[in-house]
Amino acid sequence: MVDKMDDTKTSPNAFLSSLADQLISCYQQDACMQHLNATFLPNRAKTIEVIELLRRIIFPGFFDEQRITTDNVNTHVNGLLQQTHTLLHDQIHQSLRYQLNEKQGGLGDDCDQCESQACEKTAAFMKLLPNVRRMLSLDVQATFDGDPASVSTDENIFCYPGIDAIFTYRIAHELYKLKVPLLPRIMTEYAHNETGIEIHPGAIIGERFCIDHGTGIVIGETCNIGNNVKIYQGVTLGALSTKGGQDWRGMKRHPNIEDDVTIYPNATILGGSTTIGKGATIGGSVFITASIPAGHRVTSGNVSLNITPPKTRKKKRDESAE
Amino acid sequence: MVDKMDDTKTSPNAFLSSLADQLISCYQQDACMQHLNATFLPNRAKTIEVIELLRRIIFPGFFDEQRITTDNVNTHVNGLLQQTHTLLHDQIHQSLRYQLNEKQGGLGDDCDQCESQACEKTAAFMKLLPNVRRMLSLDVQATFDGDPASVSTDENIFCYPGIDAIFTYRIAHELYKLKVPLLPRIMTEYAHNETGIEIHPGAIIGERFCIDHGTGIVIGETCNIGNNVKIYQGVTLGALSTKGGQDWRGMKRHPNIEDDVTIYPNATILGGSTTIGKGATIGGSVFITASIPAGHRVTSGNVSLNITPPKTRKKKRDESAE
Amino acid sequence: MVDKMDDTKTSPNAFLSSLADQLISCYQQDACMQHLNATFLPNRAKTIEVIELLRRIIFPGFFDEQRITTDNVNTHVNGLLQQTHTLLHDQIHQSLRYQLNEKQGGLGDDCDQCESQACEKTAAFMKLLPNVRRMLSLDVQATFDGDPASVSTDENIFCYPGIDAIFTYRIAHELYKLKVPLLPRIMTEYAHNETGIEIHPGAIIGERFCIDHGTGIVIGETCNIGNNVKIYQGVTLGALSTKGGQDWRGMKRHPNIEDDVTIYPNATILGGSTTIGKGATIGGSVFITASIPAGHRVTSGNVSLNITPPKTRKKKRDESAE
Repeated sequence: MVDKMDDTKTSPNAFLSSLADQLISCYQQDACMQHLNATFLPNRAKTIEVIELLRRIIFPGFFDEQRITTDNVNTHVNGLLQQTHTLLHDQIHQSLRYQLNEKQGGLGDDCDQCESQACEKTAAFMKLLPNVRRMLSLDVQATFDGDPASVSTDENIFCYPGIDAIFTYRIAHELYKLKVPLLPRIMTEYAHNETGIEIHPGAIIGERFCIDHGTGIVIGETCNIGNNVKIYQGVTLGALSTKGGQDWRGMKRHPNIEDDVTIYPNATILGGSTTIGKGATIGGSVFITASIPAGHRVTSGNVSLNITPPKTRKKKRDESAE
Repeated sequence: MVDKMDDTKTSPNAFLSSLADQLISCYQQDACMQHLNATFLPNRAKTIEVIELLRRIIFPGFFDEQRITTDNVNTHVNGLLQQTHTLLHDQIHQSLRYQLNEKQGGLGDDCDQCESQACEKTAAFMKLLPNVRRMLSLDVQATFDGDPASVSTDENIFCYPGIDAIFTYRIAHELYKLKVPLLPRIMTEYAHNETGIEIHPGAIIGERFCIDHGTGIVIGETCNIGNNVKIYQGVTLGALSTKGGQDWRGMKRHPNIEDDVTIYPNATILGGSTTIGKGATIGGSVFITASIPAGHRVTSGNVSLNITPPKTRKKKRDESAE
Repeated sequence: MVDKMDDTKTSPNAFLSSLADQLISCYQQDACMQHLNATFLPNRAKTIEVIELLRRIIFPGFFDEQRITTDNVNTHVNGLLQQTHTLLHDQIHQSLRYQLNEKQGGLGDDCDQCESQACEKTAAFMKLLPNVRRMLSLDVQATFDGDPASVSTDENIFCYPGIDAIFTYRIAHELYKLKVPLLPRIMTEYAHNETGIEIHPGAIIGERFCIDHGTGIVIGETCNIGNNVKIYQGVTLGALSTKGGQDWRGMKRHPNIEDDVTIYPNATILGGSTTIGKGATIGGSVFITASIPAGHRVTSGNVSLNITPPKTRKKKRDESAE
């Protein structure tokens, strides 16, 4: 049977070995699709482990296997902090060496600087944890207050994708501000995978942020969101256009959302000079590319509906319909 | 290098230890973000394990490592049922003790009652499994019948996110009806994570329910959905407004969908007194906040399109566009 | 306590054992929901393992635990190819035997043919890997060029869901063309779970394909997409109607997208005879069921917005709003 095949006139092993040679020659021709000889890559799995450790530090007792009590909490938190510090330091170090290597095509003497910077950035981040926790506490409360379907803040913490996405964003955002390369985006895209909610770590988001349902939300890199903002599923806060792509890098491309704004499902708000004023309400499925004054309410204007009555003949099951 | 840092003038250990103290003091001030000394929390990982065991009981042979035959099926199913019963009983017990503890700030003598109720509710749920399986069999058939891209019901069971979401909902809904706290929502949010489809365990959904594609679907807590209903990706069956949040708890906030209705992608239907009548068809991207009579077909009315021809000059790649 | 329960007047074991009998009798009555005595099912977990091995072959050094160097790359790739070949061959073999068994209700003498076909199809697929890698390299470059938020192609490969979904599609599509049953769809639905992006393995997609954000994208089985196409989150390329379901199987139901088209978020394009001409731009949230000529730009026409100023009285927090 096997002998019929071209490729195994020799043997499957010879076939695979020649395929390996072909692939390796592809690797050599296409530098951007391989990382041969690179010692300095951050590790996606370990970066995710940091997120999971931080979740247990921020929400003690919710996601632990063992029981946490007043007696053991000190040992417990110290252990988690040690683990997090080591893992995060290593990943930050890898990211900085990776960045340096990419920039200057080699590490040279600046390698010491990476170690020093990794220590500084890791410590700077760790110090922020009590404040991150305070912000998350306000987010949890806002999520509970805003959703009649939620029965307790415990339920919000246990299973609301909105809390999961905001938690990961608040951590990634601090690392982004500390100019840690790659890790912040790996973290928020992990949350994106888990929740369907994409928040770029560069976005600025105020206190008491509330996401309801959440699937399909996109919050762009240069968004500036105030306090008390509530956003429903499918909302895009995006760029008006990114034709020209990389030419737009670093420019303000995404909207400003002032305090106390509510944005209903599937609304799309685009553009770096678009500002939704304080207390405004944006209706579901609305498409906005210009600023809205404070306190105003926006809904789709003249979209009437065609409501067609059934035909007198019995409607057949297989009849075509849109 | 390290000596440059403020935080480690002492040592990294001292820094982390002082950070731990700070965090523990935060825990004590903010009761809603911690579960110290609580013996009685349900466990998310074990709750998900129950779902995966039930999947193997409902669809024997699809998700098992070993081969299931007429000879070994009895031992196999008995084993799975034992495991499920034990795990589920423990999680229900934890949830009930947790609920009691939250209500009265301690367990007292009612603790025995939790054990008795956990046994009853677990047994009551297990007895429903043959019926849950019958319902799912109808859902699978409806999914196959309704999708020209599906080649067999096996493909539907193996890899359709719609079936995955409906399976988890049907289980969670039975636990919801038995007034088991927390677990039903943990289950459906797990399915939400996996599939992008959010079905609140409180929703009522009839026979032969069919979800096509599915990402972004939201079905709210007080929805009432009839038989033979088909729903596409991005459809929201939501509340007209939830401003005021917790004041709306327990009220009918989500629409009724009668038998034989089809709802095309990204349609939004809102409101507790909105009823889509038997056999109606709701077009894609339509936004509805009022009832639609039986048999009617609704499409977006006067949304014309601006179709602009290309300019005579060659279109440049980096030209701005919406 | 326990004695109160009907079900355990006997014992929990007796109750579970009788439940097992009931379930087994259900299995026997409903053939489409079980796979008893079937030796020949593909395995979802192992199919996913193939995807993860191929990811490491295509992007060497990105997702490996150990460091890959010029010295060890040969051994490394040979090892991965051997593993992939064995696993994929077994899964293809299982799928072919499964298909044959389903068709003729038993394997008979054609079983040898399955083995021979599995060898041929596996080898044919493996030979395509260098070309799959070349296509992906163009996709990665297009993704980087088109997104001002991306800082390097490494970031795209590490964490962009669009690249993840396209990677899995390009592999599954080759298996689909080789008429391998079930596996291609299991693969793309795994990517759908991970990314929220659903690409049917049957779709035809040209070079330099770029997905931005991506959650909620649906690309149907009979889509034909040209080169240089860019698609944003929430876009549906779907069927005009699938009422009648299985009657439409095998027919051209999904649109054609010609070269250099850009489709903005949440646009919906439906129908097998709908063609979006070369270089056209489709605006966000547009709903299209007819062809658009080359170079044209389509936006929502007369959807004006109702922008209501705030009332003079202070807006109360719990006021109802849509």
